[in-house]
Amino acid sequence: MNIIIVGLGLIGGSYAKAIKRYTDHHVIGIDADETVIKYALSHGAIDKVADDNDIKNADIVIVSLYPKAAADFINNNADLFKDGAVVTDSCGVKRAIYSQLSDKVFSGKFTFIGAHPMAGKEHSGFDYSDADLYKGASLIITTDEPDSTAAKLLQNLAEQIGFTRCTVCTPERHDKMIAFTSQLPHVLACSYISDPLALSHKGFSAGSFLDVTRVAFINDVMWSELFIDNADHLCDEIDELIKNLSVFKAAIKNEDKQALSRIMIKSRELKEKT
Amino acid sequence: MNIIIVGLGLIGGSYAKAIKRYTDHHVIGIDADETVIKYALSHGAIDKVADDNDIKNADIVIVSLYPKAAADFINNNADLFKDGAVVTDSCGVKRAIYSQLSDKVFSGKFTFIGAHPMAGKEHSGFDYSDADLYKGASLIITTDEPDSTAAKLLQNLAEQIGFTRCTVCTPERHDKMIAFTSQLPHVLACSYISDPLALSHKGFSAGSFLDVTRVAFINDVMWSELFIDNADHLCDEIDELIKNLSVFKAAIKNEDKQALSRIMIKSRELKEKT
Repeated sequence: MNIIIVGLGLIGGSYAKAIKRYTDHHVIGIDADETVIKYALSHGAIDKVADDNDIKNADIVIVSLYPKAAADFINNNADLFKDGAVVTDSCGVKRAIYSQLSDKVFSGKFTFIGAHPMAGKEHSGFDYSDADLYKGASLIITTDEPDSTAAKLLQNLAEQIGFTRCTVCTPERHDKMIAFTSQLPHVLACSYISDPLALSHKGFSAGSFLDVTRVAFINDVMWSELFIDNADHLCDEIDELIKNLSVFKAAIKNEDKQALSRIMIKSRELKEKT
Repeated sequence: MNIIIVGLGLIGGSYAKAIKRYTDHHVIGIDADETVIKYALSHGAIDKVADDNDIKNADIVIVSLYPKAAADFINNNADLFKDGAVVTDSCGVKRAIYSQLSDKVFSGKFTFIGAHPMAGKEHSGFDYSDADLYKGASLIITTDEPDSTAAKLLQNLAEQIGFTRCTVCTPERHDKMIAFTSQLPHVLACSYISDPLALSHKGFSAGSFLDVTRVAFINDVMWSELFIDNADHLCDEIDELIKNLSVFKAAIKNEDKQALSRIMIKSRELKEKT
């Protein structure tokens, strides 16, 4: 198959490298940064730099851009994608992608299926991309027809490059879950490290400090867009966390050992189940 | 030297195993649970089970019990410790230890120096103890005289068994810092995992979810005591986190990209510096 990767950042670069390493597909790259695309080509992460003909002949197009740019790219090329092509993205929000796509996308003879690889690093860019980034990870696919030829194609590719799970759900469900599982830990890391004591942590900290702050090294441009695109769910999740922190604090302040034990026993049970 | 370890849980058991493995000192154990002490003896984690004579002859006594029990043990044995002996604890709070110790402890001819090894696991008990638990960790020592013979003895032992840093500070400073670096991440893990969505995270989560929830598998008895003993500082830290989360939330709600970028750029800088 001819597979085009649009945007060779951490996610797109890792797709390119993984498909090159683990499959025989022909990998074609697009990136706005000429030094990146040349480097990727000379280092074997892609087979070719794309031109308009390649877009017309692509079997799969993986758009790994930020949400607005991804929707724009798909809208602008809707007339070029060939019949039967599968077009996907890899954005961390899904409702915002679908709502920004034009009618042309859904009436065309190609199929758009939103996707979100649950993998990442605290650093971004092609430099950090890795053929094994997706090993053991989940790929979330937002489609109503998980058994369609297009969805199967995507799931097979995912499996070939290391994903061990495909989660199929609606864009709404994706955005609600991701607000909790991924966006909230990022908001948390930034909020936690903003404490005036953070700069003096050395000599007083161990694993739990490092765990909470790992993702504080954050890409502000990408995450600003993702957070705002998912504001409703994310604000609900921040409220839920603040509520739970307040309950915990009240128990500490009241020296209520019973309440504290109850919360912690429940936490332990939840941690065991999850 | 004769070194007594009181309480062969995760921390005390790891002290015993580390001292056995990395030094030639004679390791003597005390534990309320007879099956633990017998197991530790037969498996070479200690050389001997302590009797009163051993307490009288000990050069170093490491009390690895919960705060109240640690203070009780030290108070009850204050008449037995020999001249020049160094007695230490390994509790996660320090003001509460000092305030519970009797005058006899400070007027005796032995020296008490509070300490807190910055190492742990999400599981507790001798089963999880490990000779290498302290490798690369900090030992916090609360003393006014870091150059005294007693403090030097403790620091040398710490270095021998793998600690790479000794932080010397007051009990007040310890408690303030630990509220932020260690207690808050534990409160946070429990508060985060209490979200109703936690049980459905599979297929939607990756590293940041696992990082935040790791310590939610928590020992409620020990941490209830630690949290209440440090309630003032810990409540301040929870308030600070709630404040920062609220600022973040307001920026998301207002779709204020500039404010969001400002927070995240600062987070990234802080993460780089810390």
